[in-house]
Amino acid sequence: METTARKSLDGLFNGRGVAIMGASAKKGKPGHSIVENLRAAGFTGNVYPVNAASESILGFQCYRSLEEITGRIDLVVMVLPADDCVEAARAIARRKDGKGDISAAVVVSAGFSELGTDQGRSREKALLDVLVPRGIRVVGPNCLGVMDTYSGVNTNFDIGAYRRGGLSIITQSGAFAVSYLKWAEPGRLVGLSKFVSLGNMSDVNVVELLGYLADDDRTSVIALYLEGTRQGRALVETAAHVSRKKPIVALKAGKTRIGSVAAASHTGSLAGRFEMYQGVFRQAGVVLAESVIEFYYTAAAFAKMPLPRGNSICVLTVLGGPGTLCVDELVSSGAVRLARLSEKTKSELRAILIPAANIGKPEGFIDTTPSFTEAQHREVLKIVLGDPAVSGVIYLTTPPLFMDEDALAENIIAAYESFAPEERKPLLSVIGFGSSVPRLRNRMEEAGMPTIEYPDIAAKVMINMVRYSRYKSRFDEH
Amino acid sequence: METTARKSLDGLFNGRGVAIMGASAKKGKPGHSIVENLRAAGFTGNVYPVNAASESILGFQCYRSLEEITGRIDLVVMVLPADDCVEAARAIARRKDGKGDISAAVVVSAGFSELGTDQGRSREKALLDVLVPRGIRVVGPNCLGVMDTYSGVNTNFDIGAYRRGGLSIITQSGAFAVSYLKWAEPGRLVGLSKFVSLGNMSDVNVVELLGYLADDDRTSVIALYLEGTRQGRALVETAAHVSRKKPIVALKAGKTRIGSVAAASHTGSLAGRFEMYQGVFRQAGVVLAESVIEFYYTAAAFAKMPLPRGNSICVLTVLGGPGTLCVDELVSSGAVRLARLSEKTKSELRAILIPAANIGKPEGFIDTTPSFTEAQHREVLKIVLGDPAVSGVIYLTTPPLFMDEDALAENIIAAYESFAPEERKPLLSVIGFGSSVPRLRNRMEEAGMPTIEYPDIAAKVMINMVRYSRYKSRFDEH
Repeated sequence: METTARKSLDGLFNGRGVAIMGASAKKGKPGHSIVENLRAAGFTGNVYPVNAASESILGFQCYRSLEEITGRIDLVVMVLPADDCVEAARAIARRKDGKGDISAAVVVSAGFSELGTDQGRSREKALLDVLVPRGIRVVGPNCLGVMDTYSGVNTNFDIGAYRRGGLSIITQSGAFAVSYLKWAEPGRLVGLSKFVSLGNMSDVNVVELLGYLADDDRTSVIALYLEGTRQGRALVETAAHVSRKKPIVALKAGKTRIGSVAAASHTGSLAGRFEMYQGVFRQAGVVLAESVIEFYYTAAAFAKMPLPRGNSICVLTVLGGPGTLCVDELVSSGAVRLARLSEKTKSELRAILIPAANIGKPEGFIDTTPSFTEAQHREVLKIVLGDPAVSGVIYLTTPPLFMDEDALAENIIAAYESFAPEERKPLLSVIGFGSSVPRLRNRMEEAGMPTIEYPDIAAKVMINMVRYSRYKSRFDEH
Repeated sequence: METTARKSLDGLFNGRGVAIMGASAKKGKPGHSIVENLRAAGFTGNVYPVNAASESILGFQCYRSLEEITGRIDLVVMVLPADDCVEAARAIARRKDGKGDISAAVVVSAGFSELGTDQGRSREKALLDVLVPRGIRVVGPNCLGVMDTYSGVNTNFDIGAYRRGGLSIITQSGAFAVSYLKWAEPGRLVGLSKFVSLGNMSDVNVVELLGYLADDDRTSVIALYLEGTRQGRALVETAAHVSRKKPIVALKAGKTRIGSVAAASHTGSLAGRFEMYQGVFRQAGVVLAESVIEFYYTAAAFAKMPLPRGNSICVLTVLGGPGTLCVDELVSSGAVRLARLSEKTKSELRAILIPAANIGKPEGFIDTTPSFTEAQHREVLKIVLGDPAVSGVIYLTTPPLFMDEDALAENIIAAYESFAPEERKPLLSVIGFGSSVPRLRNRMEEAGMPTIEYPDIAAKVMINMVRYSRYKSRFDEH
């Protein structure tokens, strides 16, 4: 990626002066929430609300215009009626021509090309014609813009603070990404690095963001919600390169002709043929999720767990039924097989588990029965994770009432952490009703252990990890 | 179904005297939890813990043997070491031969045919040989037995009280059904009527339970988790008849050869060929879910919502992205089409929504944009649900921070309830992150309005409702 493009995106994520055109003193207005959320995200740079009618908003002094702001501005957020945006862009341009400091603009406002009208399209073009030639990068319009949990930059009117982590999100639907983050919040399932809601994607686009995030040390996995792009070939080529370094987990909307009409009315994007995306994405190493929940859990697991170094999975279950559902899903994929446990492993397990436990029927499947204490979890998981024939483990339980949630969590975590980081294998835990055992789930997630509510989804996540690992290993070897 | 069989199952659900062989005074033991949960479930009959070493358990006087119990016993629960079960069965038989009062036994204990050993199989046969010829029906062994939220009968050592409702569960995995109920509990997604965990299904079986529940006025939908049965033909014939009256939502485990080995080791059941089940179940009107989460939400929705009287669905969304994902899933099924809204509906909507709202691109799709107040929800939903061209509605939102959860819930509920019961249409609401807005979700669920976290799953649920409705209408017309 060329240096100037990278530098211009740096201004988006790492600006130290943020002006908000359309900042509002009225609680509940997006122009108020943006100021509120920027503060909530821990931004320590300068916040400049532009509002001619108010003295200050949330303690930040207001300015009547950009010109009045004496400090350096890196990023301007526009949250104005669509009719006023072109005039605002001209004000940005005047400032840029004079002081030269603004490097990016996030246009939150809607009412542009997504309307499908000539007026909407020409308004969007006018906006870009003023800003882009001056080297000002534009995110949107019709978007939530950017969040960076490390720098504290945040233009999102819906989410303020969010826990930090390795997952970055690129999305053509702000609402979709917000749903994901809020869904994950109570269970602490996701730690976020960067968030970019692209809206109509008039300038800053998915292709260059993929390239940018590939080189971002704080991003270990990229979650991509895509409706469509005119840069299909560039997208696939870039994705194939990025996937050699880190996983891209994608969800594609507009799979059907009718769905693509909905997508077009949403962000003006062309959905393209889904089958085309499916084929080329898979070749490019992109993990294409088949459902929203698979997308959610897969992206979260990649951010927390190491990759499997093979496709031999052990299913360790306290529960016959959910264990069976998990096995069904794993083996029907064709990508994964159940691990052939060593005789040593089996005899060690026999010495710990009760005689009624099922060790190896079928091969690689262990049903402990509910007679399985907190402390035994540690011993058994160490044995199973330590078997060289095992590439990864799915563990399934619904903790009985009498089980100590904390002790269970500590034993599982201790078993996993007893291995040196470079020897660790993915361990996905199916906690059958996560929200009923928040202590267990939260403790495990905080320690970086993914907890998934559904046995078949855990299987799909593991399959995705195996497939991606196989793609990546082709390049690691060279 | 013959009357004697029905009567014997009545004794299972409606017994007024329950003896627990293996009742324990020690908290955490299954033999203790069963007494505790029977009380918690509100059972008002007589509880007889059989325990020679204790005076009383949880306030219930203990008995050293069944013989000592002078009151009437309808149901005996066995929660004993497997080795002691046959002797316990003989004690039941002696009492039956004398007093003639016991009509059913729930054998919670494991260690029978599921072991796959000769000993396990012969132990199970010995148990049945003693009980069944005497007219004592046996549930299990290796099961959680029965729960009836109306009678208060409960032999489940994991769940005590549960909210009442129209859903009944028949399951070959106790853990699976417990997971479902606990998963649904915080969001109040499910109201339960009867629960039967069949374990090894040595006597009381899925076929007769389906017949029994078909005639049960307190059961409006049957959720079935099936691993396998030797009565394949009877199952399909019964299911086809039951489906004319009420929906059966099924999840089939042991889809793969390797998965069926796991199922066999779990409950000793023969999984059979999945493709066979798939074909004949669909012909029999059974709703066969493809994933655990689809099963969960489909069963819950059938219990709460009326059936659609056609296949024309309207997608009403506040959110472009999730709305698009929902449309994709709906139309790719082939079973559903988007509704052709009337011109009257469109013009009424135009008068309420902002000009940027998308009304009818594609046909049957309405994107309100987030400028959509609580009160407007009521007006818009009334218009859409009232359009004769609409058979059902999926509504999608992620309520913004400034929205009043209570007011939103009340407006949605009021719109739905403005129609007379016989004119109501299914309304499925996608609340993008249900656990973050518990007030909204709980209020809606209490009013009988299903809330689903994922747009594609809501689509699958609606497709299942449309397909089932079409099956059922073939018989209603005659």
